[in-house]
Amino acid sequence: MPDSSKTFDHKLLEEFSSDALDAAGTSKEQSRIISRHIIAANLTGTDSHGIFRLPSYISSLKEGLINVQPEIKVMRENGATAIVNGDNGMGHLVMDFAAHVAVDKAKQYGIGWVGVNHSNHAGAGAVYANIIRDEGMIGIYMAVAGANLMAPWGGKELLLGTNPIAVAVPTRNMPPIVLDMATSVASMGKIMQVAKRGESIPDDWVMDDNGKPITDPSLASKGLTVPIGGPKGYGLALIIGVLGGTLNGANFGREVKTLADGQSGPSNTGQTIVALSIDAFCDIDDFTEKSDQVYQTMKSSETLPGFDEVKLPGERSYKEKSVRLKSGIPIQSTLLTSLDELAKILSIKSLDNR
Amino acid sequence: MPDSSKTFDHKLLEEFSSDALDAAGTSKEQSRIISRHIIAANLTGTDSHGIFRLPSYISSLKEGLINVQPEIKVMRENGATAIVNGDNGMGHLVMDFAAHVAVDKAKQYGIGWVGVNHSNHAGAGAVYANIIRDEGMIGIYMAVAGANLMAPWGGKELLLGTNPIAVAVPTRNMPPIVLDMATSVASMGKIMQVAKRGESIPDDWVMDDNGKPITDPSLASKGLTVPIGGPKGYGLALIIGVLGGTLNGANFGREVKTLADGQSGPSNTGQTIVALSIDAFCDIDDFTEKSDQVYQTMKSSETLPGFDEVKLPGERSYKEKSVRLKSGIPIQSTLLTSLDELAKILSIKSLDNR
Repeated sequence: MPDSSKTFDHKLLEEFSSDALDAAGTSKEQSRIISRHIIAANLTGTDSHGIFRLPSYISSLKEGLINVQPEIKVMRENGATAIVNGDNGMGHLVMDFAAHVAVDKAKQYGIGWVGVNHSNHAGAGAVYANIIRDEGMIGIYMAVAGANLMAPWGGKELLLGTNPIAVAVPTRNMPPIVLDMATSVASMGKIMQVAKRGESIPDDWVMDDNGKPITDPSLASKGLTVPIGGPKGYGLALIIGVLGGTLNGANFGREVKTLADGQSGPSNTGQTIVALSIDAFCDIDDFTEKSDQVYQTMKSSETLPGFDEVKLPGERSYKEKSVRLKSGIPIQSTLLTSLDELAKILSIKSLDNR
Repeated sequence: MPDSSKTFDHKLLEEFSSDALDAAGTSKEQSRIISRHIIAANLTGTDSHGIFRLPSYISSLKEGLINVQPEIKVMRENGATAIVNGDNGMGHLVMDFAAHVAVDKAKQYGIGWVGVNHSNHAGAGAVYANIIRDEGMIGIYMAVAGANLMAPWGGKELLLGTNPIAVAVPTRNMPPIVLDMATSVASMGKIMQVAKRGESIPDDWVMDDNGKPITDPSLASKGLTVPIGGPKGYGLALIIGVLGGTLNGANFGREVKTLADGQSGPSNTGQTIVALSIDAFCDIDDFTEKSDQVYQTMKSSETLPGFDEVKLPGERSYKEKSVRLKSGIPIQSTLLTSLDELAKILSIKSLDNR
């Protein structure tokens, strides 16, 4: 049976999220920043990284697994680079801070490359790359995923996350170019959505520890997520892990838990955010004219059978955002139930009573 | 019939290459730099990007498609960033210059991010990432490939190169971690090698303009090279094109020729090289200890059936280099014939007479 849904204005969802975070002990200002970044994921259709996660964030905050009142600080600085210690705060807050440090550095040095440690899950990477794009710069985000779901190529031990990368590029009249991808063929979120619909999983998404495809969705969480391009996706996940984790003094490899292990202490999540000031490289107007051209060039390609059009990275999200800004964000009934429960526990107004 | 081969010491091959470049009009010092980077590819087993390319480089130099005596210059600078104009010189020379600019900037600002325009094919990306690694830093290389071989996902027009990325990470006692990958499932070089052996091509490497696999190697050059992870590899190739081409004032998209078009003027190839100074982020000894741990962690994974061991990115190249430094570099008889012809045309000593 398809899950029914209700739509809510994004401002209302942000308020709900802020109230929930306030009730869990976060300061009002921090609650607002976190909520804006949570709902930003919903606005672009990345529901797997949006308000769906709020109940689990709140329980982590209440259990003390995430620090409610972090003091986020630049710990090390060297011209265009910095290391930010997130003090085990919400990843959204840590990455908001780090993105602004990166932008400031890029204004001064042409680039800002900021590594983060003692952070936590920050939701959708594109949100932070877009903070930088909103400043007219190119933003790059990399993260060590919170749980290991992949094995090194040829191996069967879960030693790697589906470590994602997001890049946001300003344009002039065209929608921005925004790539946001995990280094696996399919993210665990996508796999779980298929599972939820009761469909079988395509045979190149997950494998068992004999290297054979797992297509039964009920077995997916016990499998190995397949990296894109086999050894290449493994290599990318490894390098993102080194840049986002090892270099930043954050966890990587066996230091990161698997889903089955669960979490018992601070995750020491590592992320990296880079701001590139376009006018350090070329005239900004020339650049946005050219990035529009890149957009239009790709778009103008004749299509393969089965495709109506060529899409640009971020195009679907951009369209979804313009729809959802107007019509609201659909919340599935199962999620609504869990948000109602959350409201009851925290003694805040439920979504329907706002 | 398998091609027979002779092995030559890498120093002898470097000398041969230098003499050839000298004869084509390159200055002695520049010839030596170029030759070192050409043979560096052969040393690590990347023969498709090594001396195999020399005859074509020499004819491009003699035809004036590549500038024999380029004046490579920093054209724009902003603290940690720079744009280098390669003056249509050999890519090896331009990237050698740019890598050193990046290292200098990283010493001062923690990072150096250097974009290049008016460059040419530079051989193997790992060579330049390794120049930076040799300085104890992390090196990142990205390039707009010289010919468009891929279509945007869902399209059938060749608008993208298999734009590669290379990253080199220092270790302490373990071999360095060096990723060097195209954003396609298989590089054109690899496809051509399979074709040469008369084998059929795996069905996920190349497709025709109906989206159907091409497995007949004789048809491969007319097909669309398949990106890793479908839309993800397309997105990566696009972003590398924007960072390596558009941002740097170099060609990208329809400005880049396809193989069928051939080359008639300067390629205005764009590349990007990044140096990250590890001690801007953490203690360098801590880092190399941890990168050794990353290496050993991946290596220690139990293996899937059909795999003897887990390999790290760059491991095969590292082993090949230690073998070839001692035993020499094998040159196939067909390549030897073409290098003999080159020697005759340029009136330099052939490989066998050295």
